[in-house]
Amino acid sequence: MKLVRYGPKGAEKPGLVDNQGTLRDLSGHVDDIAGDTLSDAGLDRLRGIDPASLTAVEGAPRFGPCVGGVRKIACIGLNYSDHAAESNMAEPSEPIIFMKAVSALCGPNDDVEKPRGSEKMDWEVELAIVIGTRAKYVSEADAMNHVAGFAVMNDVSERGFQQERQGQWTKGKSHDTFGPLGPWLVTRDEVGDPHELDMWLDVNGERKQTGATSTLIFNVPHLISYISQFMTLEPGDVISTGTPPGVGQGMRPQQFLNVGDVMELGVEKLGNQRQRVVAA
Amino acid sequence: MKLVRYGPKGAEKPGLVDNQGTLRDLSGHVDDIAGDTLSDAGLDRLRGIDPASLTAVEGAPRFGPCVGGVRKIACIGLNYSDHAAESNMAEPSEPIIFMKAVSALCGPNDDVEKPRGSEKMDWEVELAIVIGTRAKYVSEADAMNHVAGFAVMNDVSERGFQQERQGQWTKGKSHDTFGPLGPWLVTRDEVGDPHELDMWLDVNGERKQTGATSTLIFNVPHLISYISQFMTLEPGDVISTGTPPGVGQGMRPQQFLNVGDVMELGVEKLGNQRQRVVAA
Repeated sequence: MKLVRYGPKGAEKPGLVDNQGTLRDLSGHVDDIAGDTLSDAGLDRLRGIDPASLTAVEGAPRFGPCVGGVRKIACIGLNYSDHAAESNMAEPSEPIIFMKAVSALCGPNDDVEKPRGSEKMDWEVELAIVIGTRAKYVSEADAMNHVAGFAVMNDVSERGFQQERQGQWTKGKSHDTFGPLGPWLVTRDEVGDPHELDMWLDVNGERKQTGATSTLIFNVPHLISYISQFMTLEPGDVISTGTPPGVGQGMRPQQFLNVGDVMELGVEKLGNQRQRVVAA
Repeated sequence: MKLVRYGPKGAEKPGLVDNQGTLRDLSGHVDDIAGDTLSDAGLDRLRGIDPASLTAVEGAPRFGPCVGGVRKIACIGLNYSDHAAESNMAEPSEPIIFMKAVSALCGPNDDVEKPRGSEKMDWEVELAIVIGTRAKYVSEADAMNHVAGFAVMNDVSERGFQQERQGQWTKGKSHDTFGPLGPWLVTRDEVGDPHELDMWLDVNGERKQTGATSTLIFNVPHLISYISQFMTLEPGDVISTGTPPGVGQGMRPQQFLNVGDVMELGVEKLGNQRQRVVAA
């Protein structure tokens, strides 16, 4: 299934996109794409609904972040070896975890703000994992059972804030709108192997990032098991798994985003995003 | 006012502690100590209630974290110069921000878990700020208007996870129960100047930390204004302002927590906490 949240910011309704690409309203069945709805049982209940019985939504509403009630966004740093190289950083011996503030979440096609004083705003197309059930000290073998599905994340970053303003990357990752998530939460049965997905990102129509999850240093089960040793993952928590090469900071000369620039990005099977950069 | 959340974990009710120290039930007036209730208008509505009209709660129920619906815990690193020195780190030129996972929150007297594989579990008594209204790009002059009140936080830490497991402190700060918060949310009118509060922490009855918020490097308005340049603070967000000297890592020889140890700590005007260390 492709699950969505659609409508105005802060008042999104749950929906699904059927096999014909029609957006249908789920608000008669669930309050939100969140919490218990993300468990295997909750998703099975939605699978039991005939999409044709759901009202088709008129027009082309805005999509919000495809998951509601998110309590944590755990991001993985330097999880593609060639991205580590372009960042002049060593390939990590175990996953680097940093947190993006949940207030940064936005819809996949919302405008993205350039923070005041930003001179090094950058892009990062990523595969995001959405947790379906509580995970604490889970094994790699069991990890996938805790996944609701996957989505596209643009891990928008301000490199100056991240790296030149006293330690801890969260400072450069947490501005409002720095977390476009969606358009869809694609359930894990429909994705198949998450380590065979191509991904790409364009700025102003020019290809910047080309990659594939097949070159992840730490794969999806490893990341879930690893993170669950340090913090409990809860339904709706998001793990953004790192970005392939081609970020602006890695270019020679470096390239950063300005007001008016347009990012377009996508991950195979998970849909596309498009954001325009505006002033904060 | 002293606002609390009491009752079993996950089913806490809102309450207040009156001037005689009696716990009274607020659940007829508000759903939770969270969200809009934390605004000046929301707190004024609670002030308008005669405490004697509220049912006194029988017995001595558990206290939960004193704020509900917390979306972010922004912690400040090395915000006391003598703690920076004992940590062998330079005094920061601007605030260090790191995030503690919200799933780490617990009640002020709940057992605290020693994570599997932990060899360097440590304590940190801190003054926590609770945000009352949305704060984005606020000035220092305006910052205090966005504060609901203050509480005690024990920023429990695992130094090995924090410093020896690949960058980013969040890994050592986010285990379940690493964020005891409370007992009370004391509203800012009742605290007065938050920069004149003594604080202390004992382990097994022996004094380890003695400090006062008068020696903060970056004070409360500065922190709020500063953080609001990087992320939007929302009602119920918590800022833990850093710890004074006396943590276990700073001792010679170093001292760390073991199963069975008891931490007791407090901040003037904000009440006391007591936690026993148990195995995860």
